[in-house]
Amino acid sequence: MPEDSRFGPARHVTLPGPFVVDSGAVLGTVDVGYSTHGDPRHPTILICHALTGDQHVASPHPRTGKPGWWSRMVGPGLPIDTSRHFVVCANVLGSCMGTSGPASVDPASGCRYAMRFPVVTIRDMVRVQALLLDHLGVGRLHAVVGGSMGGMQVLAWAAAFPDRVERAVVIASAARHAAQPIAFHEVGRQAIMADPNWRGGDYYDGPPPAAGLAVARMAAHITYVSEAGLTEKFGRRLQNRPDGATGAKSFGFDADFQVESYLRHQGISFVDRFDANAYLYITRAMDYFDLGEEHGGRIADAFRGSRTRFCLVSFDTDWLYPTAESRAVVKALHAAGAAASFVELSSPFGHDAFLLDVPELDRVVAGFLAS
Amino acid sequence: MPEDSRFGPARHVTLPGPFVVDSGAVLGTVDVGYSTHGDPRHPTILICHALTGDQHVASPHPRTGKPGWWSRMVGPGLPIDTSRHFVVCANVLGSCMGTSGPASVDPASGCRYAMRFPVVTIRDMVRVQALLLDHLGVGRLHAVVGGSMGGMQVLAWAAAFPDRVERAVVIASAARHAAQPIAFHEVGRQAIMADPNWRGGDYYDGPPPAAGLAVARMAAHITYVSEAGLTEKFGRRLQNRPDGATGAKSFGFDADFQVESYLRHQGISFVDRFDANAYLYITRAMDYFDLGEEHGGRIADAFRGSRTRFCLVSFDTDWLYPTAESRAVVKALHAAGAAASFVELSSPFGHDAFLLDVPELDRVVAGFLAS
Repeated sequence: MPEDSRFGPARHVTLPGPFVVDSGAVLGTVDVGYSTHGDPRHPTILICHALTGDQHVASPHPRTGKPGWWSRMVGPGLPIDTSRHFVVCANVLGSCMGTSGPASVDPASGCRYAMRFPVVTIRDMVRVQALLLDHLGVGRLHAVVGGSMGGMQVLAWAAAFPDRVERAVVIASAARHAAQPIAFHEVGRQAIMADPNWRGGDYYDGPPPAAGLAVARMAAHITYVSEAGLTEKFGRRLQNRPDGATGAKSFGFDADFQVESYLRHQGISFVDRFDANAYLYITRAMDYFDLGEEHGGRIADAFRGSRTRFCLVSFDTDWLYPTAESRAVVKALHAAGAAASFVELSSPFGHDAFLLDVPELDRVVAGFLAS
Repeated sequence: MPEDSRFGPARHVTLPGPFVVDSGAVLGTVDVGYSTHGDPRHPTILICHALTGDQHVASPHPRTGKPGWWSRMVGPGLPIDTSRHFVVCANVLGSCMGTSGPASVDPASGCRYAMRFPVVTIRDMVRVQALLLDHLGVGRLHAVVGGSMGGMQVLAWAAAFPDRVERAVVIASAARHAAQPIAFHEVGRQAIMADPNWRGGDYYDGPPPAAGLAVARMAAHITYVSEAGLTEKFGRRLQNRPDGATGAKSFGFDADFQVESYLRHQGISFVDRFDANAYLYITRAMDYFDLGEEHGGRIADAFRGSRTRFCLVSFDTDWLYPTAESRAVVKALHAAGAAASFVELSSPFGHDAFLLDVPELDRVVAGFLAS
């Protein structure tokens, strides 16, 4: 790999502005936290992360020390092969891991943006990624790959920059956010904003709205797993009690059931690594996502003339972005004359399957990227 | 109808105790708010209400002024025919509409119970109803009918008092609460308990934890409706703005989407009529519900030798207590040698279908009660 401070895990750049977001608001400059893996002379694969993901796709998370969130997919000899591709992953605009978002300091005022940060869109996220790639000297992309909100970015990439995207891998995603996922996001936002520590978003000099954010995460987490998966993993099994008693009901409000304890842990561990305002902004961007919006509802019109090759994957137990959403995208792509393949994979993991051990997903991704 | 202060809508009785609940705790006396309709000399039908329901099944709600929650099902000439049956519906133990619960004053201390109220079970609710029926002079029941948590009470009735229950109508329910519904309940409880106004349950001399209860209701409400129903009713349609603009994104955090506004309304209107602690207690009772628990997991053993005739109904779009749950009950009943019929009805309304306009449900209930 060439010696160049632009390349490697855990990098950071301040891109010169002004950057005009879809709402019309202007950011003077944009910070971007990102990681690269592999040799920049190789064909580039851009990975787009999901709602609560980040740029630490294949290297340890700096706060939790855990392995990269897709380290089973990205690395030497893995389906996204860093010995043959230059892999880039950037924290999205609006997030809290180095890229400008509500927790960032506004250079103009010297204060945190908080809710003065502009509401951004998935397309804004993608345009920042394009500027980052310009900075890295990357023109065309061998592929853009992402699951869930990452898949929305992949579709937005292919729509906004068709000439830069050779291949697009869209996993467990949708071309527009439907009513039920909007509803779940709204529950999460209301939970955060109901927390008195939220204080209109200006909580950075005090305690964060941790309780609200934990509730938001708990509600969201249920949508990430399958009903059968929860039953299989926990069923109605009871926790062992702190006093050592096994599996007895407390007749109280402690976490009697293992599934309660698991959910509480999901909520509590999340608040240590994520900013509540960023959660508001990113869920809003997802809710606003609708590739048909500018085309009278016709998603196909977003892809007319595209020469990008698309690969869509859904999971049979994903009820958040179910197979029907992927099918709708494929139908639109075919109507636009684009090349699109689609597979529904079987997995017990629900929506989270794209992050977990699904060997068939590895084969599909590896095969499509080598094609 | 005979002149008797025990009969009529919006009645109240204090039942002498002591009443020992399943946890072993003792209530000195038990208040019961209930309604009756029809002539007490007619065969009695007991109606069991759902989580946030009450005794106002066919008469206006005293707080909201709205018609009874099942007034399309219960009345003269309706499927549950009050001109031919004596109909009783009681507010459940642990609730907040006249029956003893955490918001009640503990006669022993003169203070509100709050979290000092014992955790109760579905069977405790049913045993209080049995005591109420004793007080009303009702022995055998022509039928016990209920949907959702009401259906759990029907099953608990048939298991605890097989000789008193001639017919059991169980709609959109389950014989034990599964992991996913427990998980949703836990989100709601955490939302309530995270509200600083909750104050360990002792909020009765101050503002209630309205924000937390509203979030709990919003999360729960999503589970009551079908994904297709939400899409059909709201899709991605935008609210008209307060400034009169139609259907424009605000690029802010107001309720842009109609589905957001609808959910917020569900949350806000709920807190005016329901006690947050009661919500904790009743969800807990549902989570504890498992008819197989005392029989090594074998639900059938709860119904051995039963001569009750059962009618089970599920709805094809109900993902909270899906058809598989009803099928499992029917299978257990058949294994126990009990007479059980089952039908899955088609409805766009999801779990809430049991409360809404589903003419086929009316026919099923009317036909079974006349059999």
